[in-house]
Amino acid sequence: MPKEGVSIQVIRRLPRYYRYLSELESKGVEKISSTKLAVLMSSTASQIRQDLNCFGGFGQQGYGYSVTGLREEIGKILGLSETHHMILIGAGNLGRAIATHLNFEQLGFKLTAIFEKDEKLIGTMLRGIKVMRDEEIENYVKDNDVSTAILAMPKEAVEKLIDKLYGCGIRSYWNFSHFDIAKKYDDVIVENVHLSDSLMTLCYRINQAPGIDT
Amino acid sequence: MPKEGVSIQVIRRLPRYYRYLSELESKGVEKISSTKLAVLMSSTASQIRQDLNCFGGFGQQGYGYSVTGLREEIGKILGLSETHHMILIGAGNLGRAIATHLNFEQLGFKLTAIFEKDEKLIGTMLRGIKVMRDEEIENYVKDNDVSTAILAMPKEAVEKLIDKLYGCGIRSYWNFSHFDIAKKYDDVIVENVHLSDSLMTLCYRINQAPGIDT
Repeated sequence: MPKEGVSIQVIRRLPRYYRYLSELESKGVEKISSTKLAVLMSSTASQIRQDLNCFGGFGQQGYGYSVTGLREEIGKILGLSETHHMILIGAGNLGRAIATHLNFEQLGFKLTAIFEKDEKLIGTMLRGIKVMRDEEIENYVKDNDVSTAILAMPKEAVEKLIDKLYGCGIRSYWNFSHFDIAKKYDDVIVENVHLSDSLMTLCYRINQAPGIDT
Repeated sequence: MPKEGVSIQVIRRLPRYYRYLSELESKGVEKISSTKLAVLMSSTASQIRQDLNCFGGFGQQGYGYSVTGLREEIGKILGLSETHHMILIGAGNLGRAIATHLNFEQLGFKLTAIFEKDEKLIGTMLRGIKVMRDEEIENYVKDNDVSTAILAMPKEAVEKLIDKLYGCGIRSYWNFSHFDIAKKYDDVIVENVHLSDSLMTLCYRINQAPGIDT
């Protein structure tokens, strides 16, 4: 269990530990020292020990970490076995990419329904799920156990829809739009994915690096 | 111009400033105080002043910031008018979403070519660009001015292709795979987008919040 007040920076590093450990495990590696893990992750041994100490440690002096043990512990901390039910809103290019690209079941979620307003896409199949009309969201959420919505829509569409989603009781969002949900409601959990911010950061870093551009 | 040693955390906040200022500008707002900007961005006035002071300030005592002026200055710092030429590798669901979803021209880039190995997709049009066979990458990069590659492929595909891309002289990457490029080459610039990490973080935050799940 996490000690109180674990910073969001530490939390955000946990999925990365989980990924690297999963990979080591799939290669048959059984144990690893914090020094070796640090080299692999381009981090430092001290950072790794500090991060993991927030949750109680897990390493053994002179042995290092058990790869499987540590992966499982981090999986437990992240709660990846919890299976929160989620719906996807938006079955356009971005929604399709999200639906097909991710192993939701291994990441703590199950995608149970997909909604779209474009008539052409309604009724099509995506990840084995029939895309429904967005007007059906309220009824669906009323009848089913849904905790989370993925918003793969433009900002304006989210702005129009968010009151309805909040009204249905949905309190957690994976938000690909630029609409600032947490500013409107203070009892929601929002993970924003701002792809354009990432691209602007890349632009800055290219400009700052001498001789990188052609 | 940035003072030396501006931290990556500050840099990563700049696109966010840019987005909020662009929005204020589009609403006709001419000036804003750091206090009001802080409320809008769920930040603090002191954080904003501190961040902007890394680049020389821009505010006027008792006036605040000129919205257009500050947006333009941040755009200059990010180098958004530079137009780096980039190629997209992978025209599957994720590649299509990236190609259609982003205003590259407003973010410092121009998407000039798209490559794919799936025969079914070669020759199709995406954002007005004809998808080419991935074997043509080397010749294309030799004949054209390309600084950056978007990698919308699985880890294993990137692992196979990365030496060729590096060999062609491409030194900056927008990487959607889990392959750790910066670990292999130390003179590259890589912005990673790990969607699954974001989803795992959301899972953790839902589990930690009492009463959020249904």
